Amino acid sequence: MPSGLHFLVAAKQSEIAHLEQLAQTSALVSASAQLVHSLQRERGLSNLFLASGDDQWATALEKQTEDSVRSEARLRICLAEMVEADEPVLHRPRVLNRIALALQGLDALPFLRQDVSRKGLKPAGATVAFIRLVDALLSMVFEAADASAEPDISNCLVAMFNLMQGKELAGQERAAGAALFASGKADRNQQEHLIHLIESQERNFTVFLNFADEAVLNVWARSASLAVMPQELQRLRKALLESADGGPLSTDCSQRWFDACTDRIEAMKLVEDALASELKILCEKRIQISKNELARFELVAKAPLASPAAQEQAARHFFAQTSASTATLPANRISSDPEAGASAGGTELEKSILDMVRDQARQLQTMNEELEAARASLNERKVIERAKGLLMAHRRLTEDEAHKTMRQMAMNQNRRLIDVANAVLAMADVLPTPAPSR
Amino acid sequence: MPSGLHFLVAAKQSEIAHLEQLAQTSALVSASAQLVHSLQRERGLSNLFLASGDDQWATALEKQTEDSVRSEARLRICLAEMVEADEPVLHRPRVLNRIALALQGLDALPFLRQDVSRKGLKPAGATVAFIRLVDALLSMVFEAADASAEPDISNCLVAMFNLMQGKELAGQERAAGAALFASGKADRNQQEHLIHLIESQERNFTVFLNFADEAVLNVWARSASLAVMPQELQRLRKALLESADGGPLSTDCSQRWFDACTDRIEAMKLVEDALASELKILCEKRIQISKNELARFELVAKAPLASPAAQEQAARHFFAQTSASTATLPANRISSDPEAGASAGGTELEKSILDMVRDQARQLQTMNEELEAARASLNERKVIERAKGLLMAHRRLTEDEAHKTMRQMAMNQNRRLIDVANAVLAMADVLPTPAPSR
Repeated sequence: MPSGLHFLVAAKQSEIAHLEQLAQTSALVSASAQLVHSLQRERGLSNLFLASGDDQWATALEKQTEDSVRSEARLRICLAEMVEADEPVLHRPRVLNRIALALQGLDALPFLRQDVSRKGLKPAGATVAFIRLVDALLSMVFEAADASAEPDISNCLVAMFNLMQGKELAGQERAAGAALFASGKADRNQQEHLIHLIESQERNFTVFLNFADEAVLNVWARSASLAVMPQELQRLRKALLESADGGPLSTDCSQRWFDACTDRIEAMKLVEDALASELKILCEKRIQISKNELARFELVAKAPLASPAAQEQAARHFFAQTSASTATLPANRISSDPEAGASAGGTELEKSILDMVRDQARQLQTMNEELEAARASLNERKVIERAKGLLMAHRRLTEDEAHKTMRQMAMNQNRRLIDVANAVLAMADVLPTPAPSR
Repeated sequence: MPSGLHFLVAAKQSEIAHLEQLAQTSALVSASAQLVHSLQRERGLSNLFLASGDDQWATALEKQTEDSVRSEARLRICLAEMVEADEPVLHRPRVLNRIALALQGLDALPFLRQDVSRKGLKPAGATVAFIRLVDALLSMVFEAADASAEPDISNCLVAMFNLMQGKELAGQERAAGAALFASGKADRNQQEHLIHLIESQERNFTVFLNFADEAVLNVWARSASLAVMPQELQRLRKALLESADGGPLSTDCSQRWFDACTDRIEAMKLVEDALASELKILCEKRIQISKNELARFELVAKAPLASPAAQEQAARHFFAQTSASTATLPANRISSDPEAGASAGGTELEKSILDMVRDQARQLQTMNEELEAARASLNERKVIERAKGLLMAHRRLTEDEAHKTMRQMAMNQNRRLIDVANAVLAMADVLPTPAPSR
């Protein structure tokens, strides 16, 4: 019959299995960050190639495509390792589903490239397609963060998701701004879209700054284009956003805007790389700690049984009013051989199993409490996205419009966006069902 | 290289593994309910035996102890099956830790019985020891409920936990009330304790009624002593609670009170049994549904590949603006053999893998949203318990006093208990650290 000690050990083994699964997911997240970065560049060059109709971009695009293909291969290797380890079953269905979706997107990528190289697409069409693929990869990262039950790793993954999404929105801002400058005149809808992109990315960076650890924050703070928004960029943003609808924009600014944005995005990439290596180290460290704890438990399991009297005394302790400190406690499994105690460092062997179970309970409780901030942040995002989706479906709004509506409600009512989102969802039942549009 | 289809299948396999683990946990929960019921009776008889000093109770106690031993054996068989299936690693560390704690308690039980049979304990001491053991079993059930990601099963487990805890509090009320009647005079502290037990059990039953399904609610509603509190019990409760401190209580009422409470508790047991079999059926049903879905996916995986042109058309669909309905979609894996399609029922084979992935995503999303009520209820309990624990530690209160303090705050401020608990926790940082008491 399995004993309490048996399940104490099983709890630790389960924790280790979860951490190993997190290490795998984290490797996948880092590979995704790399791939997203490659795709962002490929998207930019595809746009330039399609917009200019100029074959001078063809070589650069081809080179970038090769880089994307290599990044994709690295991601697929991560996935193959996951399958070979025969561990997919340990991952959450939601994470696996997002992987399936991302793979469907990657399978479609060669056809998108075909269309681009044949100039069979408009720049906007190519942009939308790349955004869709990047979105699939980002939502995989989001679910990976949501599946973590280890607070430090969760914080790191939340920081990573927000940095990746902020960077993606910065990339979209770069493209939208460059196109607007190139068009030579301001446009109200495009300006709304830019505001949406800027506000959303600021929200992402705020969360990132809350969840990243010191080492990563230092990389961010040391970067000239991240710690403070460069003046050039501020000026160009102002020109984009504050020109009257239809008013002139200097087409010359297009390239300067693009380059300034690129500098900032490349700086983000360096922070992302720092975060990825931080994540890797963190996973390894946590696994090692848990394995050491497991080894101590196993040592206790192997120790010879204590005398019946000592066992009785230890068992009775379950009913004691308060959990006493270790020193005063009888052990219910303690080696009568002083050598064994000494070679094991002694401390764990002197503890009763009951104390070890209670220590573990406290540790799990603390972990759970420390997880709360990360969970709240992920949940907040889910609620805002659901509320936005609801507004889009019920009031036939675009995403920009839904964002604007919620932002306006928040400003008018002096409430946080999350509170407005909750209010929108609470109203879901009374909203009319929209007529099917498809 | 694993494909999207591969991970679609893996997501379903992971779901099935989780459901099978839930079925195991649910069997454990039902065995715990049975054991808790046996222990509640054994506690009552131990009390009578110790309080009366009368050996007439010895035989009844001995018989009840045999019953408890059988219930414990059934629970241990569940645990042995869990270990033999080599699946502990699939369970959450918190659940496994609670099992370890409960087993430590069960290992101590024979020594408690020894003390009782030797009359080496006061009735109150035996009561506290049994309560501690039942608490360990209940918190195992709580963690099992918290570990479920399937909404219907979660609801069922939340109902079960609250019914079990409400019933346990009803048992404690029975014992405390009987002792108070037997003492012949009212006592302010004991009355406070009774109020705590009554209010807490009412909160449990409210949650139970919110989460139990119709079949179980019918069992509850049909029970004469549950649907409405019996008049006899109402009258006796009033006598217990409203007598002035030190005022006389009729000792004759002790047995009548005990019997009336027992009727009600036995009625709860019938509801608990109904809930246990509901839970079993639900797990089996959900596993079957998921296995059927998996079989459909596997059929698609075995179907011959579609033509390259059809594959391209399907892949490109990833970039389509809206996800179209099934009928208009090209399939990227469709058998050219009409037999294969027909024998499989056809419908799934006509869907593209992309559609299947998106269907699965929607299904997982819906499940997650449906889980929210159960999660919120479990979380509410965690927050209230943590706040209570904080008050007990920082203001050196007993549990009754902490409960009373929070209840008073809620009444004075016209707020819900959960809001008061959140406020208490928010203040945690500014509360002074108590001097160590041990």
